[in-house]
Amino acid sequence: MSRLDSFIRRALAQRDCLGDAARQIADLPGPVIELGLGNGRTYDHLRTLLPAREIFVFDRQVIAHPDCVPDARHFFQGDFRATLPGAMTRLGAPVALLHGDIGSGNVAKTAVLATWLAPVIRRLLTPGAVVVCDQPLLDAGLQALETPPSVEPERYFMYRAGDAGFSGD
Amino acid sequence: MSRLDSFIRRALAQRDCLGDAARQIADLPGPVIELGLGNGRTYDHLRTLLPAREIFVFDRQVIAHPDCVPDARHFFQGDFRATLPGAMTRLGAPVALLHGDIGSGNVAKTAVLATWLAPVIRRLLTPGAVVVCDQPLLDAGLQALETPPSVEPERYFMYRAGDAGFSGD
Repeated sequence: MSRLDSFIRRALAQRDCLGDAARQIADLPGPVIELGLGNGRTYDHLRTLLPAREIFVFDRQVIAHPDCVPDARHFFQGDFRATLPGAMTRLGAPVALLHGDIGSGNVAKTAVLATWLAPVIRRLLTPGAVVVCDQPLLDAGLQALETPPSVEPERYFMYRAGDAGFSGD
Repeated sequence: MSRLDSFIRRALAQRDCLGDAARQIADLPGPVIELGLGNGRTYDHLRTLLPAREIFVFDRQVIAHPDCVPDARHFFQGDFRATLPGAMTRLGAPVALLHGDIGSGNVAKTAVLATWLAPVIRRLLTPGAVVVCDQPLLDAGLQALETPPSVEPERYFMYRAGDAGFSGD
């Protein structure tokens, strides 16, 4: 498989998982978190899928297309290891959907980041919230969900937050 | 349509057009040109599709994944407006397939570049060569081809070089 093939599969998996997650949270109130604005493509997709939701974006800097940049109130600028843990004050309500595209070329660093991330985001999620992530997340409060049938195993990951999320723990 | 949707359609169109072009030139000798290495995805796809062909790449700089970088003999570094016109000496033979992903965010500049490009590449092509490009190219020596049925009109463009290419003009 070429890098173009792999890239297409990844983008299709991303879209299919986000669509599935949006349907799953249709009746669950709460804002959306996008970890990593990047070029703004998935942010744009999320606001198309979920026009009535507040979407908060976390990234170090803005390199996205100007049409795909959230306003200042919805953008947490900086390393999300610094901005995520205390984000609830500004979010205002526990989160219904979180998408994280956190992988870098460095496999070891990515694994460390995912390990750090899982318990941190769990505390921001409302019970029943859905997490869509390019990396596997291990946390007792996150139950693995099957990705849509179109998505190859291990290409993308989905989880549902249990009751021990924001309200408990 | 979100930017993610649009991006997926573009990548699928790119792949389908390149696959179609590779089939069309199966019996036509000559090297391949990739205008714009970028991240190396389509270069990687071209060498997967056409493992027996020499592929020459033109770009200002190398920002691709290290696995997707051609060797020095197959890489023309610099603005291709400077490197393309005299490239035949190093190519060694007229070209059977050219892929150009030349569009930038600037519509006017892109149109000027495409206008400049069409007659320049025509002189490098062997009769019957196929051009796959993200921009429309206007030149009497380039006959428009239909893109594969999976590709939306105007999403990607294909041309066949007439007899007035390298050998004539």
